[in-house]
This record gives sequence, structure tokens and C-alpha cells, in this order.
Amino acid sequence: MKEKYSQLFSNVKEIQPLVHHMTNYVTVNDCANITIAIGASPIMADEIAEMEEFVNISQALVLNIGTINERVLKSMLVAGKIANKKNVPVILDPVGVGASQFRNQALERLLDCVQFSCIKGNVSEIRFLAGLSSKTRGVDADIRDEMTSEDLANMAKKLAEKLESVIVITGVVDTVADCENVYLIKNGHEKLSSISGTGCMSASLLGAFIGANPSERVLSSVLAITSMGIAGEIASEKTRGNGSFKVALHDEISCLDIQTFNDRERIISL
Amino acid sequence: MKEKYSQLFSNVKEIQPLVHHMTNYVTVNDCANITIAIGASPIMADEIAEMEEFVNISQALVLNIGTINERVLKSMLVAGKIANKKNVPVILDPVGVGASQFRNQALERLLDCVQFSCIKGNVSEIRFLAGLSSKTRGVDADIRDEMTSEDLANMAKKLAEKLESVIVITGVVDTVADCENVYLIKNGHEKLSSISGTGCMSASLLGAFIGANPSERVLSSVLAITSMGIAGEIASEKTRGNGSFKVALHDEISCLDIQTFNDRERIISL
Amino acid sequence: MKEKYSQLFSNVKEIQPLVHHMTNYVTVNDCANITIAIGASPIMADEIAEMEEFVNISQALVLNIGTINERVLKSMLVAGKIANKKNVPVILDPVGVGASQFRNQALERLLDCVQFSCIKGNVSEIRFLAGLSSKTRGVDADIRDEMTSEDLANMAKKLAEKLESVIVITGVVDTVADCENVYLIKNGHEKLSSISGTGCMSASLLGAFIGANPSERVLSSVLAITSMGIAGEIASEKTRGNGSFKVALHDEISCLDIQTFNDRERIISL
Repeated sequence: MKEKYSQLFSNVKEIQPLVHHMTNYVTVNDCANITIAIGASPIMADEIAEMEEFVNISQALVLNIGTINERVLKSMLVAGKIANKKNVPVILDPVGVGASQFRNQALERLLDCVQFSCIKGNVSEIRFLAGLSSKTRGVDADIRDEMTSEDLANMAKKLAEKLESVIVITGVVDTVADCENVYLIKNGHEKLSSISGTGCMSASLLGAFIGANPSERVLSSVLAITSMGIAGEIASEKTRGNGSFKVALHDEISCLDIQTFNDRERIISL
Repeated sequence: MKEKYSQLFSNVKEIQPLVHHMTNYVTVNDCANITIAIGASPIMADEIAEMEEFVNISQALVLNIGTINERVLKSMLVAGKIANKKNVPVILDPVGVGASQFRNQALERLLDCVQFSCIKGNVSEIRFLAGLSSKTRGVDADIRDEMTSEDLANMAKKLAEKLESVIVITGVVDTVADCENVYLIKNGHEKLSSISGTGCMSASLLGAFIGANPSERVLSSVLAITSMGIAGEIASEKTRGNGSFKVALHDEISCLDIQTFNDRERIISL
Repeated sequence: MKEKYSQLFSNVKEIQPLVHHMTNYVTVNDCANITIAIGASPIMADEIAEMEEFVNISQALVLNIGTINERVLKSMLVAGKIANKKNVPVILDPVGVGASQFRNQALERLLDCVQFSCIKGNVSEIRFLAGLSSKTRGVDADIRDEMTSEDLANMAKKLAEKLESVIVITGVVDTVADCENVYLIKNGHEKLSSISGTGCMSASLLGAFIGANPSERVLSSVLAITSMGIAGEIASEKTRGNGSFKVALHDEISCLDIQTFNDRERIISL
């Protein structure tokens, strides 16, 4: 498995996939920088008229609905359809879904029109997608949505089957599943939730890994999420406050090598 | 008074108020991160269709007109009215008012339609609100608008009475007033004006403190502004350049405890 | 020459030019902070209704099409025309031109309606402007567009003549030309392309230097680009990862003095 990880990891550095983002205005800079840090290349255009040309040159498309509005939703729908036609993998980050009707309907339209390669959310967001009652508190997971590892794994697998997509549920332990396999990732650190944008940056990493390894969606997802977890662990060891933690997180992603990855990964295949 | 401060301060950490922002695209990431650093939780949505649901779950609403446009102004008006109906405190940061007719009219519409719990600006912005001639130079205070502490206190108090709002005037010494009390805050450091966004971040802290302590608007405002001042002092002692000062500022807000606050605060009640 | 550099450099600190930006939402915060760091003052408004008043108080206008959309393009056209009428120098950063028809047409409309004082791009972007076949890969220069120093110098000079604008081509060696003079700048470090926004920040520095020295457009451009290069060199010596490199870059621009500049500059006048 370690060899497989090495292959997927080094593909990102070699292929340097172009990852086209349509994302929120809060953490967009972090997304651009983390994409470069892992070895890929970001694009951030959202004008509907240029979606086709940008998707055509991209290896992955990341859609994040954090500050979604009507204008950008239209561009996302167009970009997503083109990506499907061109076999460009599409990653969805359904930020805050469940918190407003507008957001829920936006998600419904996206799911109706676009086939996603990977959908990543916190437990509240994924519960919403799975049709379970969810208590989304703004853009953070609600504590009342807590579930056991087993329930999470089952939910992820079922949803993966239904949506024909890799499902990533972030949390203290992260869950990654397709319709056949479930992986638990025990890397990470609580400091990752003390700054804005680690979720969004994880979606960028998903874009980078899946973009470089389109035929290995589930393992690529595992690597992306584990990379963020490991970088968070190392960054937390080196820093005290939130500002320097964020800086160190970018440092550690940019300095992460496959040896460190393989030494520190705590990936469990169920 | 120190005990009171402790109470208001720890309420932020305990209640973790949701602070809904509609703000400019320049410093929005700093606002999100400083909100988390102080112990609160940020939301940044601005689509008009989801204002009601987001305001309903929020403990405070922060409106910042730094890069205001027609679309977002409409969302702000809707959000502000709902907040008033639901007793969610609204904080206004009238960035650059006086610099353009569009901005002045936007402000007028906001003041007409929304009752603010707190309005924070530099001396040029507050002079404009007070109807005095103001020489706003872009988004920074104009040196020609300088006033004595006494004049500032009087202006703040009068405006607080007129607008039924706490008034915060930032400067070398900060002034915080409602219609009865005036506080001067002698904390802070000139480095705070060497980076973009410290004013916007102060508004986020106002949202966090007032959101957690809605019945103590004026003291909450004093604490928010003093926290930024103290963090700026400590950060300036530790750093040389602008980049690391900004990082340290986030660090110090995230590490600020009530002991440090009470040791360093230089709040004067007039 | 060193004395001339000193004069242009200190003018930025003294005049503190207001630099009005209309730029992308990815790196806007970096642009604001680098503008302050060099000694100037940023404005970022983009509502069409306030363009006239903001351009009127500005010493330079920076237009960056990184995430251009129809709304902001209209504001740019209005702002650019006003700037021309008021003799406010306009700097263009044609990010990603060549990558989409929409972007190409936006650029065409900008070049038709606005006279630019300075246009800065990577080799792919400038080749597109020069009408040569260009292979823009998203927003980064394409390796297949590589040219010899001599060819770059000739292209820059010819384009400068055609567009009556200073032309800056960034790369391993930067080329700055007007219709008479060509300068090569050998400062810089490869780490500058490991973070998002160094190109955009260079455009902000161009705004700061040209805004403070409008009658010295070409030398101001040389100083702006060299400043970024020197700061990048020093920052790279002090840091390991991408996050701290970015922080150090802001530090070094804010701490850059003319002695360091004159000691380290590797400007070659052809």
C-alpha cells in the first residue's frame, strides 16, 4: 500500500494538475496557495462565458458553495456539465448545506446536473445529503449530529453508492468511502478547526490528487485528507497561536514528502 | 470592573456566538479568522435569499461597506431589518463613507432602515456621520480631521444619543460612548495601521463580544477594542515586519486570556 | 543612477500615493498589504457608481483581470477612462489573457478604451498582446513560450512603442521597456512562483512607484519589479516552507530600505 501511496503522491508533483476552483471569497487565497503547495496549479475564474475554455484545460474542478450566489451557481452548473462531458473529475464541497433553503436548492440543482467524483463535508453536511435530519450550525458541524464510526462508515458507503461518488466525511476521525471500500483516517489535530478554511483547502487537495490520479478516486481522496491531517499535526507541534498555525500548515503541506507521509499516516482500511 | 470584564470576556468563549458578516472582499479572511480566534464562529453569506435563515441562527450581524455594491447593499438592508425584528445586534463599519456619493447614500439607506447596536469608524468616518465636514482620504482617516479627546468624546456621545447606538471612534486613543458613558482606550500600537484589515477585524470582535453579551453593548465594545489594542501591542513587541506582525496579531488574539487583558488594559472611564 | 533610485524610492514613502485597485478576489488582500508595506495606500472599490470619485483622489489605478466578470469589467472601463482624463496613471495586469475568448475580448476593450502607463505580464500574456502565438496554461506562463533575452527585449520594446506604454515581462530575468530603453532585472528567486499573488503584488508595487513618480514611468517600473525580486531573495534565505515565505516577503517589502536596494539590485540597462 505504501508503494501505491508513493505513486499517487508523486503523480501530483509530476503532472502538476490544473485545478479549476469556483469557491467562496473567504478562503479562496488559502485554496490557491495550498494547491500550489501540494504541487498542483490553481485557476479561480467564475465568469460563465469562460467556463468551457477553463474546464477544457483543467484536470479537476472544485465547486465550493460557501458564499454561493445566483451568478456563481449558474457558472458552476455550466462548468460541472462541461467537466462531465470532458471527463474532468468534479469535487463538491457543500459548505453549510442544510442552513438555508437557497443553499439546499443550489445543492439539489448541482446534484441533478453534475456527476461528482468526490463529495466532502462535515457530518452535518453529509447527513443532510443522506437525507437524515441534520442540525447544521452555520458552516460548522453540529455536535448533536455526532455518530459512531460504524454509522459514519455505513452512511458514507450508502451515499457513495447512491451518488456514484467518493464520499468524504471530515471529523476527529475522517471517513472516506466509495461503494466498495471504507477508509478511516486517524490523522489530524484539533487546531485544524481553529482557523478558517481547512475544509476548503482539503477540497483543493482532493482536486489536486484526483486530478493527477483520475482512475484512483478513493485512494486519492484518502491521500488528500491524510496529507492535510499530517500537516496539521506537524504544524500544531511547532506553533502556539492561530496565526502561526495557519502559516505552518501551508509550510508543512509544501514540505510534505512521501517518507513523512508514510511514517505518519494512520489510515485504516475497513 | 475587572470582574465585569472577566465575565463579558469568558461569555464569548462559552457562548461562541455566531457572527454573520457581510463584508468586503479584501479583508474577509482576516475577519473570519479573528472571529474564531476570540472564541466566536463566523458566517459570511451574502445571497439575499438566505439572509433570513442565517440571521435567525446568528447572535450578531456585522455590516462592512468597504467594497459595497448594489447587490450586497440589498442583502444588507434585508439582513439588517430581520436582525432588528429578531433582536440580533447589528454592528456597522462605515468604511470610507464620505469618499463617494454612492457610499454616502448606501449609508443613509442603512441608517434609515436598520437600528444599529454599535457603529465603529475612524474620525473621518464618524465626523461624516455626525454631519461635520470630513475629509476622508480613501478608507483612512484624514490627518486634517484630528480632534481633541474632549471633542471626540462629545461628538461620540451626541451621535450615540442621536442614533441610539454605541459609537466607537478608533484612533491613537479609541473612544467608546453611549448616550451616558464615555470610555477612552489607550491600548494599541501604530503597527496596527501598517496592515490592512485591523479596522474590519475590530468590527468582527465587536460582533463577538456584543453577540455574547447583548445587554452590555457599551462595555462589550470597550472589551473588543481593547483586546485588539492589547494584541497589537504584544504582536509589535515580537515582530519586525508587516507580514509577521499580522500573523502575531492573530496569534495574540487567539492566546489572549483575561489575566493579560486585565494586566494590560488602559481603559479610562470619563 | 543609485541617486535616482533613491529619489524615486523615497518619493513613495513621502507621497504615500493612493493606489486604486480593481483586482481579483484571490490575492486582493496581498495586494492591499503590499501596497501599505511599500509606503503607499490602497483602495479596492469596484462599484461603477463610485469610480469617478475614487479615481479622482487616487495617484494610480491598477486593473487586474484575474477573476474578471462582466460587472467589474464595466467598472474598469469607466475607471480607466476617467483616469486617462485626469492623468492618473493606469497599470494593467492581463492575468491569464489568451486562456479564454471572454478574457481576450475584455482585454481588447480595455486596450481600445484606456491608455495604459504600464502593462505587466508573464511571457505568455505579453506574447498574446504582441500578437504572437501564445500557449497560456491557465494563469501561469507556458514553458513552450520561452524566449531568449534578446527576443524578449525586442518584443517588449516594440510593444511599448505600439501601445505607448511601459512593458514589463516577468520571468527568471525580468524585462522592462519603453520605446527607447530596455532594462533587465536579474533579481528574484524561484520561490516567488511558489505562492499565489506575487505577480498581482508586483502590479500593486508598480502602482505605488508610478503613482509617486508619474513622470518617471520606466524607472519606477524597474524599481517596483526589482523591489519584489530583492524581497523575494531575502525572504527565501530566511524560510523553508511556502507559508512562511509569504509572510517573510511582506516583511521584507515593509523593511526594504534604499541601502539594501542599492546593494542588491542587479539591474542592467541594455
